[in-house]
Formats: sequence, C-alpha cells, structure tokens
Amino acid sequence: MAPKLGILAGAGELPLRIIEACRAAERPYFVLAFQGSADPAVVAGEPHAWVRLGAAGEGLRLLRENGVEELVMAGGVRRPSLLQLRPDWRTAKFFARVSYRALGDDGLLRSVIRELEEAEGFRVVGADSLLGPALAPEGPLGRHAPDEAAQHDIALGFRIVHALGALDIGQAVVVQGGLVLGVEAIEGTDALIERCRGLRRDGPGGVLVKGTKPGQERRADLPTIGPRTVTAAEAAGLRGIAVEAGATLILDRDAAIAAADRAGLFILGVPRS
Amino acid sequence: MAPKLGILAGAGELPLRIIEACRAAERPYFVLAFQGSADPAVVAGEPHAWVRLGAAGEGLRLLRENGVEELVMAGGVRRPSLLQLRPDWRTAKFFARVSYRALGDDGLLRSVIRELEEAEGFRVVGADSLLGPALAPEGPLGRHAPDEAAQHDIALGFRIVHALGALDIGQAVVVQGGLVLGVEAIEGTDALIERCRGLRRDGPGGVLVKGTKPGQERRADLPTIGPRTVTAAEAAGLRGIAVEAGATLILDRDAAIAAADRAGLFILGVPRS
Repeated sequence: MAPKLGILAGAGELPLRIIEACRAAERPYFVLAFQGSADPAVVAGEPHAWVRLGAAGEGLRLLRENGVEELVMAGGVRRPSLLQLRPDWRTAKFFARVSYRALGDDGLLRSVIRELEEAEGFRVVGADSLLGPALAPEGPLGRHAPDEAAQHDIALGFRIVHALGALDIGQAVVVQGGLVLGVEAIEGTDALIERCRGLRRDGPGGVLVKGTKPGQERRADLPTIGPRTVTAAEAAGLRGIAVEAGATLILDRDAAIAAADRAGLFILGVPRS
Repeated sequence: MAPKLGILAGAGELPLRIIEACRAAERPYFVLAFQGSADPAVVAGEPHAWVRLGAAGEGLRLLRENGVEELVMAGGVRRPSLLQLRPDWRTAKFFARVSYRALGDDGLLRSVIRELEEAEGFRVVGADSLLGPALAPEGPLGRHAPDEAAQHDIALGFRIVHALGALDIGQAVVVQGGLVLGVEAIEGTDALIERCRGLRRDGPGGVLVKGTKPGQERRADLPTIGPRTVTAAEAAGLRGIAVEAGATLILDRDAAIAAADRAGLFILGVPRS
C-alpha cells in the first residue's frame, strides 16, 4: 500500500479532491490545514490539524506524529508579510538561509520543497500525480473552439502571462479584442474574472488565459481551473478559457466541460511555445 | 498671443487644469470632449463640443471650424472594442493603415498624434508644457521619505512597471513587503488602489509605484497623480507613492503635498535608471 500521505492544505477545492482520491484508492492520509487559507468545511471530519504558516516546527512534529511519509501541497496559501508570519525557531532557521523578501511565490515554494525533502526526509509529490488524468490535454475540451479573433487574444494573453511569470507574479490575464482588461497579482483568478466583468467592452467577449511561470515548481502550485472558473467566466461575459496543455489541473473535468458546453464557452489546451 | 488651443478631453481632472492654465494665460481654447470619457461637469460652460471616439471626421471638422491650431491630449480615454468604435470614414481611413488590434494603448496614441500632425497639420503639445512646474522632481516631495523596506518595495515596483510597460499594459503596481498586491491594466490607478485596500497584509503598508512605458509618447498619456491619489493611498493603508522624476504630472501639487504630509505618506520622484 502507498505510504500515508500528508496533505498540506491551502485554499480552494484541491485539498478535497485529493482527499477523495485517497479514499477511492483506500490510501491513508492526514491533512495539515493552514490557518487563514484552508477551508474548514473541507477538513472537518477528516484526520487533520490546523497550523500557522510560520509554525514549521509544530507542523513537522504533527506530520511525524501522524506517520506521514509523503507530502502533497494542495491549494494556494495566503502569503503573509514577514511580520505577520511570526516564525517559530524552525521557520526562522529556514529563513536564516532563504531570503523571504527576495523570493517571489514560486521561488519560495521551491525552497520549501527542497527543505522538506533534503532536510526533513519527506518525499513531495505533485497533486496531478494523485488525481489521474487531471491535466489539460492539447486542443479544445468540449464542443466549442476559439474563432480567429479569440485566437489573437489567446496569443496575446500567453505573451503577457509568460512575461509576468518571469517576474514571478500572477499567472492569469483577461484579454478582449486585443485589449488587456486585467492582470492577476495576488487577488487570485476568481477575483480577476469578477473585476473584468465590470471592465468589459461591447463586442465579442474576452478570453481568460492562464499559464505557468518559467521553470515553475509543479509540485507547489499548478495553475488550476474547474467548474467554478467556467461559471465565473460565463457570468463575466468571457468567450472561453485557454490554459497550458500538460501543465494545468482541471478539477471535476466532466462537470467543467459540461458547464462550458452549456454556456457556449471554449476550454482550450495550448502547448507551451 | 499663443494660437487657439484644442483640448482633446478625456477622463479626470487634467482637462480642467489645462482650461485653468489657458484662462490664467488669457489664451483662447476649445474643448473637444470624448463621449464616455470626459467629465460633463468640467466642460459645461466652456466652449466645447462632444464627439464619439470613432468620429474622427466630425472631430477634425469641429476643431477647424473653431479655429484651433494647436492640440493637447488631456486625460485618459476609455478605449472601445473595434466593434463599439463604429468608425466614420476618416477613422476607417486611419485604421486602414494602422492596425487597431495590433497596437497597445501607447502605440495607438502615438499613431494618432502622427496622423494629427502629418496628415492634418495640427501641432500637438504635451500637457506638461502648459501647466508650469507640474512634473515630479527627483527626491522626496513633502516631509516624509521612504525607509529601507519601502525602498526595496519601490525598486521591485519599478522593475515590474518597466516590464509591463514593455508590453504596453498598465503603468502602476502596488507592492507591500516584497509582495505584489496588484497590477494595473485598464481599470486605472484609482481602482487598483481601492482593490489593494482589501488585499493588504499586516505590517508596514505598501507602496504605489507609477512609471512610464519605454519610449512612451509623453504628449499622449503622461502618468498623473494628484491629491485624490494621495487620499486613496491613505485610505488603502499605503505608506507612500513613488513616481518617475521628470515624467509624471503632479496635479494640484501644493494640495497633493499637503495631503501627503498630513497623512504621513511620502511622495518620491525616482530618476529612470
């Protein structure tokens, strides 16, 4: 049997999907839920403990006491300021070597994974390896495909996402008719879509483009969409969603595709050029 | 006497400032107000006409009928989708040579200026040339200056603004403790600040950084701050505002500095590196 999985649970529904996958595979698991990020409704009734982000010592102790051998990071974590972090001794030891301020999100997560594996002896796996065929394939999913105008917007969107990714900020943009309606920073994709609802122009709707950062640590933070993304995109008058093929998690894939088909939206997997 | 000035009026208070400058200099002027962008309260009572953005033929006729020789672009214009633009013959003639879709905001404005000067024989001047000492100088304005942590945020902010500028999107970011809280696209700086109010972390507040785009057409769209920017920044818990020295308009400079001094905010002019 697979060793006990420690689920480092952040925001959103990804932790729930991984819990479901463990149950389906009868694999034992333990949820370490991050205060201020994980959804209490998801972890209630599961074997779990809550921990502050700055309390690495306590978190590691809880994982060991619960017999965890393998770890998965699931869901975004609201990154606090250094002051708000209130690092315990183990966290402080980590940050004595790794600069908090100098690192973007991805750089920091990569360092955390290295620390968990090399200093603490855990194995860290990617969420996609636990969820079956969850990565976006190449080409359209569902019945709809982008027309030529939408393809222009998609190409522009990926250019911007890749440039932003090089700066380790945001992974998503909304483009409509060559116009960049919004750029994601830490507010998250849902908030970006909601904001663009009020910024849209007349004419064919915009396109949401999500990409990865260059050299992104895929075990830490894979771009993710799901039925909720489709519903939000529909409400904001978007025409479709383009993601990086092979590098984007699609949660509840069947439901997401069905929602897109109903709404007349495309979901397109685009290979990284 | 200076020739009659045509004020191509977009959003915000910049058109009003230019009207005031013309009055003070007893210079004749005529306001061409763009529908959906210019503030009706600003142009009421002034010699003016309203025009659709896509009605270049009518706009040019109005400018000539009113004896305008020199033009200034004042205030942002809400850029419509191509469909919404409904170009008249003169606009269509322009877009037969200049791609609407391929150009970002700055590229488009640059082409419009070239058209106004070369094809139509107007002279186009920058708003800053009409407003006296309105450009941000180097160094702190007012009593407050950034501490070392804020200086780090400012440096990161300018790196991001310059990278975004190269893509001809947004001119502003908010950074707090090394974390990029928000990136501006078309929503404008006021909306960016307001959004970051809800995204701020504990600890020392963030910094608003506004920059220019590389090779930005300064007669078209100079980054602008004013007392309202300071008030919004204060409400959002920011610690200060950094702008590009010599390339940022400061409206109502005395009032802006007084507001910053009262609020404990810095306003810093940073030379472009």
